[in-house]
Amino acid sequence: MAKRSKTAITPTRQDNYPEWYQQVVRAADLAENSDVRGCMVIKPWGYAIWENIQRSLDQKFKETGHENAYFPLLIPMSFLEKEAEHVEGFAKECAVVTHHRLEPAPGGGLCPAPSAKLDEPLVVRPTSETIIGSTFARWVQSYRDLPILVNQWANVVRWELRTRLFLRTTEFLWQEGHTVHATEEEARDETMRILDLYAEFAENQMAMPVIKGEKTAGERFPGAVATYAIEAMMQDRKALQAGTSHFLGQNFARAQQIKFQNQQGDEVYAWTTSWGVSTRLIGGLIMSHSDDDGLIVPPRLAPAHVVLLPIYHDEDERSSVGSYCQKLQRRLAAENYAGESIRVRIDDRDIRGGEKRWQWIKKGVPLIIEVGPRDVAQDGIFLTQRQHGSGKGKSLPQNALVQDASKMLADMQQALYDRALLARKEATVRIDDLAEFERFFTPKNPDEPEIHGGLAYCHFHDGPVMEEKLKELKVTIRCVPLDAEEEPGKCIFTGKPSSRRGLFAKAY
Amino acid sequence: MAKRSKTAITPTRQDNYPEWYQQVVRAADLAENSDVRGCMVIKPWGYAIWENIQRSLDQKFKETGHENAYFPLLIPMSFLEKEAEHVEGFAKECAVVTHHRLEPAPGGGLCPAPSAKLDEPLVVRPTSETIIGSTFARWVQSYRDLPILVNQWANVVRWELRTRLFLRTTEFLWQEGHTVHATEEEARDETMRILDLYAEFAENQMAMPVIKGEKTAGERFPGAVATYAIEAMMQDRKALQAGTSHFLGQNFARAQQIKFQNQQGDEVYAWTTSWGVSTRLIGGLIMSHSDDDGLIVPPRLAPAHVVLLPIYHDEDERSSVGSYCQKLQRRLAAENYAGESIRVRIDDRDIRGGEKRWQWIKKGVPLIIEVGPRDVAQDGIFLTQRQHGSGKGKSLPQNALVQDASKMLADMQQALYDRALLARKEATVRIDDLAEFERFFTPKNPDEPEIHGGLAYCHFHDGPVMEEKLKELKVTIRCVPLDAEEEPGKCIFTGKPSSRRGLFAKAY
Repeated sequence: MAKRSKTAITPTRQDNYPEWYQQVVRAADLAENSDVRGCMVIKPWGYAIWENIQRSLDQKFKETGHENAYFPLLIPMSFLEKEAEHVEGFAKECAVVTHHRLEPAPGGGLCPAPSAKLDEPLVVRPTSETIIGSTFARWVQSYRDLPILVNQWANVVRWELRTRLFLRTTEFLWQEGHTVHATEEEARDETMRILDLYAEFAENQMAMPVIKGEKTAGERFPGAVATYAIEAMMQDRKALQAGTSHFLGQNFARAQQIKFQNQQGDEVYAWTTSWGVSTRLIGGLIMSHSDDDGLIVPPRLAPAHVVLLPIYHDEDERSSVGSYCQKLQRRLAAENYAGESIRVRIDDRDIRGGEKRWQWIKKGVPLIIEVGPRDVAQDGIFLTQRQHGSGKGKSLPQNALVQDASKMLADMQQALYDRALLARKEATVRIDDLAEFERFFTPKNPDEPEIHGGLAYCHFHDGPVMEEKLKELKVTIRCVPLDAEEEPGKCIFTGKPSSRRGLFAKAY
Repeated sequence: MAKRSKTAITPTRQDNYPEWYQQVVRAADLAENSDVRGCMVIKPWGYAIWENIQRSLDQKFKETGHENAYFPLLIPMSFLEKEAEHVEGFAKECAVVTHHRLEPAPGGGLCPAPSAKLDEPLVVRPTSETIIGSTFARWVQSYRDLPILVNQWANVVRWELRTRLFLRTTEFLWQEGHTVHATEEEARDETMRILDLYAEFAENQMAMPVIKGEKTAGERFPGAVATYAIEAMMQDRKALQAGTSHFLGQNFARAQQIKFQNQQGDEVYAWTTSWGVSTRLIGGLIMSHSDDDGLIVPPRLAPAHVVLLPIYHDEDERSSVGSYCQKLQRRLAAENYAGESIRVRIDDRDIRGGEKRWQWIKKGVPLIIEVGPRDVAQDGIFLTQRQHGSGKGKSLPQNALVQDASKMLADMQQALYDRALLARKEATVRIDDLAEFERFFTPKNPDEPEIHGGLAYCHFHDGPVMEEKLKELKVTIRCVPLDAEEEPGKCIFTGKPSSRRGLFAKAY
């Protein structure tokens, strides 16, 4: 094995990507498994990233006319039964509430009280189309009540057998938008407006390039007429679905009786949409940018842009270095990055300087600044820019840092995006032949974790033949990209004629 | 019955206060009952008030060193069993998850799948001391890990038999702070710091005067060593507990094994606190300020400070009035109130002007401004200041409005506080005699809703004799106010000696 420099995360991406991911999450103190099967604890550093995601998206939702509201966590079981495909899609993974009281158990401890059994079980919401739809049915009477543009920030529960922090957990946090429109066109426009909003957010805030596309029938949201998604490629060349926007047609309007009197005085069914992104985005953020030294957070979403680490050996130094750092914090906070103050933390915990520096590298703070007595004497600082790796620090005059900090952050944001886009381009292929498709998605050594595959654009004809082959190769069709050109071709699985290429990849 | 002017809300406070409350909530479009027993839908106007409450409190929590995190919704039943008083307090109102899948029922529809029964039931969190405590036990090893200062914004479920929008619902939204400290003193300091923070928030943001005090043993949080609360008086002279801060001693540390190595190298139990406020605050806000024309929102928490209502009769007028309003919106938004832009909405919905104005009066917007063609011609506006009631509008030059708007809002905030404080003073008494106590808390006509009673400061000796009498009168001891002076006296229920007065009231 070739010699290589030591990394803060073991194993490296190359050696074992899935395990590297878990170790990055742990080393950055983002989240951990809880005592409850499949549920995670989101720790302060991870939650602060989520808060920044929320803040940014929430502002965009409001700018586009949406209002927040809150709907019940618990949904009567009968509500799920109303939309046939919907129940099929979600019944298998519902947490079911059957009792409303505990009592002492005969053998000690507690048990659900038999006398407090619910007449109708309630499910913990896996998604809220049914309960929100039944509410909308009360709100909508006339065309004057439309559109309704509502969003909810909430927790949802979907019972998962195999879970992974952020990527797939039994409980997760998300936002779910639900809208009602008078016409099909308006509802379709809303679906695409949100898809664009998600893509813009992913690319500009998360620095994560995405492909917008429509899901094929088998991958649609249960009950939707059309599902659109943004798909990102992670560093292991697997795809991650990062957000979905559903045109629900009149399916849920019929199931929930969302009707209104139109301008002609006729009572007609409304058209609805729903759309969501979740804490899964944090998984996407981690896997888009982080390196073998740990997390890298894009500056736009970083809980801290800058961390200042005072270094001292006695009380005198502590005092002079401390006040130097406080002054520097004020100067940096007076600077503007992306329309806000630069966010600066001072870490003066009483632990070894080297350990402290590595903690912040692993947490992915964009600019890590060490200040010792010599820096104070020279009116300087020692700067590590996180995206350049852990080793490449440099000394700078304080004034130069303050003057350039905002630009450094903007450059880092852009560099992360460019790097991710380049990685995607390098792993993207057009394949017109099944044997090549199989080679592309087969690791050389199937017994070891190995980064392989990528994004393959192929002609296809949806159906059991394709499904069978994909299942065998553990590949999925991600979407039909919206920008796919009309192009005559043949399905690589069946030879049937095809007019547009689909996007295929292994996926999370 | 005396003649009186027509009000927007029927009945009035005087006629039937509980029903008036429901009607204010409905007329302001704050919330409604859902299809799920005891659970509410928080509508956009109500949720926007909650967002402002969140934003303000969240900032205060962060300024005092707390970080947000997120812990599981579902708690293993056995966790509740660990703290004896805690289980006693919450087991009776828990929603219990017993299955993780639905399947088709033999007779049609769905049922919980017998094969998916959980080995151990999970409860939907009624509060999170146990699950967070068990997490903290992993986080805390050494005194260097302390203090831990964490807050969570979350939903909780407590099965309630009698529910009332915002005041008591099966599901509600709240924040729950949980902290761990090395010493009793630090934990007690934290408990009081948060109590002060809550009081400051209630008084300065909600314009709701509160009394800080300690709960008696019977009213303590299950498992706490000491519970402190802020108590407010509503316009019907009933008390509302608006926030609580608990010193938990080492009870939960023992139950959850939160131990650490102190500076001397000994392993010792930590000291913990917890504290919370909920969507109940919105109930308190409504009942502190609103009048017989509907909601009044204190400006600091108003989703809109100003609403502009363009009035026009044809397209020409619509255009000139519309652009006048847009310009005014920009001018007002450039003004600063309480450190932020003045929040201005234009309501140009196509409905009758009178109806529109009344909708905003009932929603409680501080400044309601009508603009018609004549106002445009005179460079003026017509202003209604919500706290002065619905009828007292006046014409003003546009410049005068822009110049004074911020001060009007500040004055209104202060006026609401002063009015609430005055009402409380007028309804506060010192009582030294049981017969007088009984008279004070007995309505003249027990068959009709009637505003009566108030806050009574009395000497007391806690115990079954007092409890029995209070139960009979439907009165509760709210707290022993922190500012109660040492004063020799005799318990009005038992004659036993007492050194401080407690605060008694009917309560929500």
